[in-house]
Amino acid sequence: MADYRKMWEELGMDLETHDQLCEVLPQAFGDVYLSQENRPEGMDYYNMVVADIHGIRPAELIEHQKKGGKVFGTFCVYVPDEIVFAADAIATGLCGGSQFWVPGGEKVLPTNTCPLIKASVGARLDRTCPFFRIADMYVGETTCDGKKKAWEILGEDVPIHIMDLPQMKREKDIKAWAEEITTFKNVVEEFTGNQITAEKLGESIKLINEKRKALERLYELRKNEKLPISGRDVLLISQIAFYDDPKRFTKMTNALCDELDQRIKDGVSVISSGTKRILLTGTPLAIPNWKLHNIVETSGGVVVCEEMCTGTRYFEHLVDETRTEVAGQIEALAERYMNINCACFTPNTGRLDDILRLAKEYKADGIIDVNLKFCNLYDTEGYLVERGLKDAGIPVLGIETDYTDSDAQQLRTRVSAFIEMLNH
Amino acid sequence: MADYRKMWEELGMDLETHDQLCEVLPQAFGDVYLSQENRPEGMDYYNMVVADIHGIRPAELIEHQKKGGKVFGTFCVYVPDEIVFAADAIATGLCGGSQFWVPGGEKVLPTNTCPLIKASVGARLDRTCPFFRIADMYVGETTCDGKKKAWEILGEDVPIHIMDLPQMKREKDIKAWAEEITTFKNVVEEFTGNQITAEKLGESIKLINEKRKALERLYELRKNEKLPISGRDVLLISQIAFYDDPKRFTKMTNALCDELDQRIKDGVSVISSGTKRILLTGTPLAIPNWKLHNIVETSGGVVVCEEMCTGTRYFEHLVDETRTEVAGQIEALAERYMNINCACFTPNTGRLDDILRLAKEYKADGIIDVNLKFCNLYDTEGYLVERGLKDAGIPVLGIETDYTDSDAQQLRTRVSAFIEMLNH
Ligand code: SF4
Ligand code: SF4
Ligand code: SF4
Ligand code: SF4
Repeated sequence: MADYRKMWEELGMDLETHDQLCEVLPQAFGDVYLSQENRPEGMDYYNMVVADIHGIRPAELIEHQKKGGKVFGTFCVYVPDEIVFAADAIATGLCGGSQFWVPGGEKVLPTNTCPLIKASVGARLDRTCPFFRIADMYVGETTCDGKKKAWEILGEDVPIHIMDLPQMKREKDIKAWAEEITTFKNVVEEFTGNQITAEKLGESIKLINEKRKALERLYELRKNEKLPISGRDVLLISQIAFYDDPKRFTKMTNALCDELDQRIKDGVSVISSGTKRILLTGTPLAIPNWKLHNIVETSGGVVVCEEMCTGTRYFEHLVDETRTEVAGQIEALAERYMNINCACFTPNTGRLDDILRLAKEYKADGIIDVNLKFCNLYDTEGYLVERGLKDAGIPVLGIETDYTDSDAQQLRTRVSAFIEMLNH
Repeated sequence: MADYRKMWEELGMDLETHDQLCEVLPQAFGDVYLSQENRPEGMDYYNMVVADIHGIRPAELIEHQKKGGKVFGTFCVYVPDEIVFAADAIATGLCGGSQFWVPGGEKVLPTNTCPLIKASVGARLDRTCPFFRIADMYVGETTCDGKKKAWEILGEDVPIHIMDLPQMKREKDIKAWAEEITTFKNVVEEFTGNQITAEKLGESIKLINEKRKALERLYELRKNEKLPISGRDVLLISQIAFYDDPKRFTKMTNALCDELDQRIKDGVSVISSGTKRILLTGTPLAIPNWKLHNIVETSGGVVVCEEMCTGTRYFEHLVDETRTEVAGQIEALAERYMNINCACFTPNTGRLDDILRLAKEYKADGIIDVNLKFCNLYDTEGYLVERGLKDAGIPVLGIETDYTDSDAQQLRTRVSAFIEMLNH
């Protein structure tokens, strides 16, 4: 830890406040994760990553910077990491998932802003997260009102490039997104001094596709009745996917999947029979937001799938690898990314289709539609989604929550009642 | 009134509930408007329009429909009325400004949605506003999260066309907006069966420009120290501009301006000297939202300018009338409309410039930045705007409100204190 203190100091962090965060995180992690029984051994890697979350990976990023490399911080699964890695730069997710950072965000943002945005802004302005310090450039997008405007405030403190995501999904919008990706490519080239050739981009497309395949393989295993891994553990892996080295992450996740394959063969399950299979849908669960998974999995349920950006939206659909020119590759990127069904689009009917499909594939007994407080997009869409699920005869519970613990007891009561109801 | 009841019935309205609205509106109007002293005679026209707001103009729209014409309902000053009128159709604003409609909206929308959106959706779904019943097609846009998603719910009840407004203001975004206007033109042509020729479009560009010039002329008169008209009255005129017949509206407003010119010559003022001149900035004040103007003007202040969509954003900048082909005219439209500085853009630095300029032109003693509750866009931008104003040495008061009366007393206290402070 001594080494990291020096590193944090050099990053201009507020060490005193950061110490407080370092004190509470291990406790929370222990409560939610280490208390689980029969965890796969392959989880050791992710345990280690999260235990030293502000040390190991930040040190790697700084090492990369010392060699002249750049780091880009992103906030949305629509921003194509492929472009960043093709310029020998590193992309890292920056969404804040802890209440710890929220008050810092509230100093400059309306209270009526979703906690993810407030935490992200607070983590930067309060200088209590190394990732937010390290990133040389942030990449924003025009997905929701809160983020759209938060960039203007963050932009006073750090260089930021904004990608204008179309708000609809017509043919021309896919083209417009390809244009935005091209602009982004130019910015990344300029900022890194490295040219993005077709060869480099082809490599990074494969690199990220491999990560997607590993996650897809992991999720596939959750379709089994005998469940080889808990929802909590998969959530952690999904969250780590946003900032870990993609190659190593892919390797470790595939190694874990090998172990899980064996578990399937051996009939090993982390749940007792009768445990209710829950699909979560809604807003993203940024690290360390484990609240809902923890509640579900200690209330007679297990999370078998997340139709979320920390979930299926992150890895479904591969980028076509057959294109050999940059323009064609960018087209392929635009096509792949525009397949993501985020509530920021109007309309976004594909999401209900996704949920219905996933509920079937993952044999969900019930669905919980979770909304981060003040996310108007998912909240409004939830009306249509929940109605659609009810029409399809699928039990659904809609909940709204934030990063505080104040509603944990109430959530537990509602989730328990929902799971209890599924038994009848 | 008897005639109108039949009309409302034929529109499928909920007459019983609508009766309640008809009961409260005249009282509110009387309190805020008719209590004023020394009003210009030219206000009689607007008094009449608002007194029969659900009668006279709806009857005209229905008359137009009987002759085969169409009516388009709009929700944003970015939607170009010119296109609608060029197809011999009528555009009418539909933004809801009364708490009366809010509970209806809350049946399907999150409570954490701005009252303007909730009222608009409620007015439609509860069938208590003739304009919402009459419009053959709604025109939505992708300005803010709440509206973006509300269209999906409204779209189940009424045909709706969505225009994808770019979220930034680069050269390419102006082109993209021109493309959206072209798509809109095609939709309007198809829906009305009328072709939009360069001649027709040229006429409607002039028609709407004349309306803008009349409003500009009216606002210009407010720059005088001796103020010929109250802020409340101008607000009412601005609100009526959204749904009145443009030609008649222009004529009546110019006639009023003639009267006001005479007042200036005669040294007539509606305020006593020492009354503090207030510029309002922020979210729109849809009819019948007169709350803040009323408070300011009964607390020692007078509103001299609204940097709002019900204000300068509606009429500033004319469309270039020299283009003679449809493509060029649409370009000119895109250029004019992209001059509007709405917080839905990132960044939107032009708005602060506008406010600073207007404050000077209108000799404002202080500025009130008003935000409709749960409008995240203007709320977040307010942080930057208010900071910018303070930096420029202009006193500013930031307030948040909704359509209820519950905060009226508290607002009055704060506004009074602010105006009192301006005296020292
Ligand atoms: S929920 Fe939407 S805006 Fe948020 S990360 Fe996912 S795709 Fe991006
Ligand atoms: S959860 Fe909703 S409001 Fe929050 S960042 Fe994502 S899209 Fe925006
Ligand atoms: S505030 Fe923005 S979104 Fe609303 S009417 Fe004005 S321009 Fe349109
Ligand atoms: S006031 Fe804000 S939230 Fe409401 S409709 Fe206008 S831009 Fe949207």
